[in-house]
Amino acid sequence: MSDNSFGTLFRVTTWGESHGPAIGCVVDGCPPGIALSEADIQPWLDRRRPGQSKFTTQRQEADQVRILSGVFEGRTTGTPISLMIENTDQRSKDYSDIASRYRPGHADVTYDLKYGHRDYRGGGRSSARETACRVAAGGVARRVIAELLGKAAVIRAALVQVGGLAVDRTRWDWDEVSRNPLFCPDPVTAVEWEGLLASVRKDGSSIGALVEVVAENFPAGLGAPLYGKLDAELAAALMGINGVKAVEIGEGFGVATLRGEDNADPMRMRDGVLHFERNRAGGILGGISTGQPIAARFAIKPTSSILVPVPSVNREGENIDVITKGRHDPCIGIRAVPVAEAMMACLLVDHLLRDQAQNSWHRGR
Amino acid sequence: MSDNSFGTLFRVTTWGESHGPAIGCVVDGCPPGIALSEADIQPWLDRRRPGQSKFTTQRQEADQVRILSGVFEGRTTGTPISLMIENTDQRSKDYSDIASRYRPGHADVTYDLKYGHRDYRGGGRSSARETACRVAAGGVARRVIAELLGKAAVIRAALVQVGGLAVDRTRWDWDEVSRNPLFCPDPVTAVEWEGLLASVRKDGSSIGALVEVVAENFPAGLGAPLYGKLDAELAAALMGINGVKAVEIGEGFGVATLRGEDNADPMRMRDGVLHFERNRAGGILGGISTGQPIAARFAIKPTSSILVPVPSVNREGENIDVITKGRHDPCIGIRAVPVAEAMMACLLVDHLLRDQAQNSWHRGR
Amino acid sequence: MSDNSFGTLFRVTTWGESHGPAIGCVVDGCPPGIALSEADIQPWLDRRRPGQSKFTTQRQEADQVRILSGVFEGRTTGTPISLMIENTDQRSKDYSDIASRYRPGHADVTYDLKYGHRDYRGGGRSSARETACRVAAGGVARRVIAELLGKAAVIRAALVQVGGLAVDRTRWDWDEVSRNPLFCPDPVTAVEWEGLLASVRKDGSSIGALVEVVAENFPAGLGAPLYGKLDAELAAALMGINGVKAVEIGEGFGVATLRGEDNADPMRMRDGVLHFERNRAGGILGGISTGQPIAARFAIKPTSSILVPVPSVNREGENIDVITKGRHDPCIGIRAVPVAEAMMACLLVDHLLRDQAQNSWHRGR
Amino acid sequence: MSDNSFGTLFRVTTWGESHGPAIGCVVDGCPPGIALSEADIQPWLDRRRPGQSKFTTQRQEADQVRILSGVFEGRTTGTPISLMIENTDQRSKDYSDIASRYRPGHADVTYDLKYGHRDYRGGGRSSARETACRVAAGGVARRVIAELLGKAAVIRAALVQVGGLAVDRTRWDWDEVSRNPLFCPDPVTAVEWEGLLASVRKDGSSIGALVEVVAENFPAGLGAPLYGKLDAELAAALMGINGVKAVEIGEGFGVATLRGEDNADPMRMRDGVLHFERNRAGGILGGISTGQPIAARFAIKPTSSILVPVPSVNREGENIDVITKGRHDPCIGIRAVPVAEAMMACLLVDHLLRDQAQNSWHRGR
Repeated sequence: MSDNSFGTLFRVTTWGESHGPAIGCVVDGCPPGIALSEADIQPWLDRRRPGQSKFTTQRQEADQVRILSGVFEGRTTGTPISLMIENTDQRSKDYSDIASRYRPGHADVTYDLKYGHRDYRGGGRSSARETACRVAAGGVARRVIAELLGKAAVIRAALVQVGGLAVDRTRWDWDEVSRNPLFCPDPVTAVEWEGLLASVRKDGSSIGALVEVVAENFPAGLGAPLYGKLDAELAAALMGINGVKAVEIGEGFGVATLRGEDNADPMRMRDGVLHFERNRAGGILGGISTGQPIAARFAIKPTSSILVPVPSVNREGENIDVITKGRHDPCIGIRAVPVAEAMMACLLVDHLLRDQAQNSWHRGR
Repeated sequence: MSDNSFGTLFRVTTWGESHGPAIGCVVDGCPPGIALSEADIQPWLDRRRPGQSKFTTQRQEADQVRILSGVFEGRTTGTPISLMIENTDQRSKDYSDIASRYRPGHADVTYDLKYGHRDYRGGGRSSARETACRVAAGGVARRVIAELLGKAAVIRAALVQVGGLAVDRTRWDWDEVSRNPLFCPDPVTAVEWEGLLASVRKDGSSIGALVEVVAENFPAGLGAPLYGKLDAELAAALMGINGVKAVEIGEGFGVATLRGEDNADPMRMRDGVLHFERNRAGGILGGISTGQPIAARFAIKPTSSILVPVPSVNREGENIDVITKGRHDPCIGIRAVPVAEAMMACLLVDHLLRDQAQNSWHRGR
Repeated sequence: MSDNSFGTLFRVTTWGESHGPAIGCVVDGCPPGIALSEADIQPWLDRRRPGQSKFTTQRQEADQVRILSGVFEGRTTGTPISLMIENTDQRSKDYSDIASRYRPGHADVTYDLKYGHRDYRGGGRSSARETACRVAAGGVARRVIAELLGKAAVIRAALVQVGGLAVDRTRWDWDEVSRNPLFCPDPVTAVEWEGLLASVRKDGSSIGALVEVVAENFPAGLGAPLYGKLDAELAAALMGINGVKAVEIGEGFGVATLRGEDNADPMRMRDGVLHFERNRAGGILGGISTGQPIAARFAIKPTSSILVPVPSVNREGENIDVITKGRHDPCIGIRAVPVAEAMMACLLVDHLLRDQAQNSWHRGR
Repeated sequence: MSDNSFGTLFRVTTWGESHGPAIGCVVDGCPPGIALSEADIQPWLDRRRPGQSKFTTQRQEADQVRILSGVFEGRTTGTPISLMIENTDQRSKDYSDIASRYRPGHADVTYDLKYGHRDYRGGGRSSARETACRVAAGGVARRVIAELLGKAAVIRAALVQVGGLAVDRTRWDWDEVSRNPLFCPDPVTAVEWEGLLASVRKDGSSIGALVEVVAENFPAGLGAPLYGKLDAELAAALMGINGVKAVEIGEGFGVATLRGEDNADPMRMRDGVLHFERNRAGGILGGISTGQPIAARFAIKPTSSILVPVPSVNREGENIDVITKGRHDPCIGIRAVPVAEAMMACLLVDHLLRDQAQNSWHRGR
């Protein structure tokens, strides 16, 4: 219900603006006894951190996370975990000229229409900077997953298309994702993207992208139909990432042209265990996980902060042209990769707890 | 939080199974003083009702809605509105043979994995029959919209593609949608679909589809960032409809190949009013409505209940082939049209109330 | 959040007015696999049913509950359980004269001030008739308790004071509670109360009362600090019963005059098990159950519907005197007894599930 | 739902332990455009701050609050307000000896039973130190009240009884409350309490107390029946304060011995306005405010941390005697006074927003 919280039992409340003194989040409902320290969270933040390549914003942020509560002697206590990241490179002067100018494609105008009073520095609350909090919370969620489900349960995402250039799936290598700054699973395509992004940047423009996220080796039974379906909540979690305009699960939009027998995934027993022969469903049937990989894909629009002028208006109601200087990612899809993993991790922990609440009794009989 | 409720301030809780005595819902949080009677709700149910053409299930249901509470002397009282629809054509014998057989593509197997004990008659809780409750709640939401915003605020949906056949947008006519049983805005395509569906049905198969839903003349400012964004909640509302596998807002997946200047919608003042020159954003920026049409599109898979045998297993862990006899829609996308409108209507009322709670003070100054 | 729902994971949403066609509730989040039928719920409703003695309203209601969903082949399925009770003895003509008159002590005036439009028949939504829904939901909760915790876990309430006449605790006998129509644990006091109530009724008046409710043999660890503390939620659950004006846990108001050493309950090991030597805490420390009896007491005001005239105003803003004819309980405390038990049962099931969600992992290690 | 959040639309999430690096809270849902700075919050914290008299803990805390987000150019932006207070005087060595000893009357044992792993330093999460966060949030709520309702709307609390010594209500003076360190509205009684507290402290013991809290000049119509009743949520808010064991509204427990005509508050028109001739209801009827003063009283137990030995057990299951050295309040009722005001303020803002959401439409017609 709370507008700045997500999750129900594993509940994350984030706070902070792009150019305030700090950003952070409170993770409530984490099971107690989970080993946790800053060192478990920092690597994920480092992965998302800006300024690491020429393809992301050159803003320099240490993004050092501090655990302020909820952990004692190295383990969670079941009380709220407060995480804080100080903003060190705020440089708000960069943004002073846009105080009264609505940047097209940005939330400047809608925040003003809704709230009347807006922190315009760097996008304020609507800045992608806030996603660092999600990644931090995702670090906590990953620890919970590791302890409850073991190491086989993994969540991974990758950039799979930039502009018109898609990865070649025959070359897909998950290990490659961490080797290049574009989170690309295909080293050949990664090089092509570098060329495309350099060209886009030279034009003062930006470009859209596609991201895929997959969770493997999670149990069947996760999801809370009818209005807490796993796919519905996953769609919300991904659509809520800055700039996302489309989400699909499994076969996604492709189902529109399929016939029933081509869509329904056949089942067979294999070594005494239920096995799906295909995964068009993306691991979810009726809003509940099947035990197969949970797979989603989403489209993220090109960065709206560009040097190409776009017609706009200002607060005074005058027509103007806006160009946005500053330090911007030519492709915000890149940094959406670790954010998507984090949202998936938090969502799955939430559903693990919800499922446990209602169903641990009959499973234990 | 509650798994069978949606909305936060305009909150709908649904109940009921395909073959139980009745289905229904409780609508809580409706503003008082709204004129409302069964006659305001029934037409929307009639529109969704099965058995009206050869392209939807031949199950015969009167789908007569009764208001059991929350309305007095023709107006809402602000207390919960209980709506009930009796199931009259249950014929559960049709389904007895699938008690222990998992129909591929259906939720049979996941309900069993999650809950251990499942009402297998006609899909039980996971049946699309439940969507009648959403449509009924949507009827209440439409009355609230009419009284709060006036008649200009309209919500409409249409089927825009069946299998590989898409409508010709140059022939788009909203009035056409109510003239044919396929909710098609283009009369020429409607005829082609009839041929396709007849062929699919003859094959004992089914086919996927695309649906579009648009809300026009709603105010700017709706949406509750960061985790109650209008687009995120709309994605959840649509992805939660039975069989939906993909959702997009505005330009949707198309943004992946756009450059920044082609994606961001230019703004200009027109007659002293802020005007967007394009609507690639689908009426939502930063999770908040811009005042433009709110536009979404979703893909719905082919009906899983088909006469073509698909490999499966049964509760006893034996390999079987499943064919599903009975009365089924060859294309569940058709009946998803009124459901999508209902979800949009409920969601927008919810956000009208949420926005009013937080922002009526400063707007009133 | 939803105003007409209580509980978080075991969530009850009630609907219905005193003189509408029916009242009912939806119980969401119940674990699947629990044996349940109308016969498990009806006895609790019969216990609360009006018209059973001369000391409660003479309204005649069969209060037959119907399960409309969520149960299949005698067991819960984990989907919402819809319960409905038809109103058979509505006689709304009795109330027509109070349409525009605000009965002192009733919610007539506040409903009008809040909602503008009020169902005035018999109190509408604010009538104690709605508590039948709570008792029905409590019947479901008791089944969950029996299956999860076994028969030792019991919840019992009793009337302990009517006006100035308190029970003699040396004569306390729980079995006596079901033998007299006043839910009195002390047969001698029960007779005295009958005399007092007859006298009050003869005067056309009413009288206040005290109720006690106790839950025994529930596990330690229930409660969700800091804002879902068991005592805080119990206080809300009891204060929310019609007419309740005060709630205390354990020693209650008596703690004001105690010294620390007299208040803190000493602990000792007994046969290897932690044992509290006293229960001033009422079974709750820091908002979490200790394993001792959870004990609360509450005061309920005299029925506001009396034949003694009280100064009031009407909707037209004229001064009037109001007397309320009709069928009323001289002491609403009597029928609050089964309601209190039901609220305690629902609350404890909710906390069992919440505790299970967060803590089953570390307990299982 | 979230265990460490209170409120629904004006939602406060607190975090932090007694001896961690900091404590704080996130206030979500605050209307935008409200003037707010640290200077609006600090005075309330100073009032609650320990170490100000010999009757409260000698722990020295500056309790300096910092606003980390949600405020820009001196006004709220409608985004989450993050407040942080650093813990400066932690001295955790004082507590090392109680790591494995369960202090009677404290939550040590229940936290261990529930979570298995407990931050034992100074009570950890269950310490009254957390109430500083509530007071800080209350400071934000008071600013909202001032802007929405004006200065006439005031919330005040006072200590009204310590042990057996109650204030003399004929000498009640609200101004006196801020003149003495005991928040006593009666200067004569204040002196007597000083004597009593000195004696209690000399004995190494502690003593219980009663607190009253009143909100005046709030509008009628606040409260969300049936399960968000104003009195029920107020009961939860007050019962949830550390050490509280009983809550009453208006006449409270006194209603048990009243007759109907003595309980129901008569109404009369006065200068064209509805006026209640009495306030036994404590300003609430049917869970909705009447416009009269909203008045509640609660009992708070004696501090459990005392020098008098009390039998207990330790984590190893051995019988021990516990005495608790350290810096403790002989009467925690004193510092509950500002906390009660803060809870009342937050609750009323929450209900102002909830009421506005549902009812602003018909009021505006």
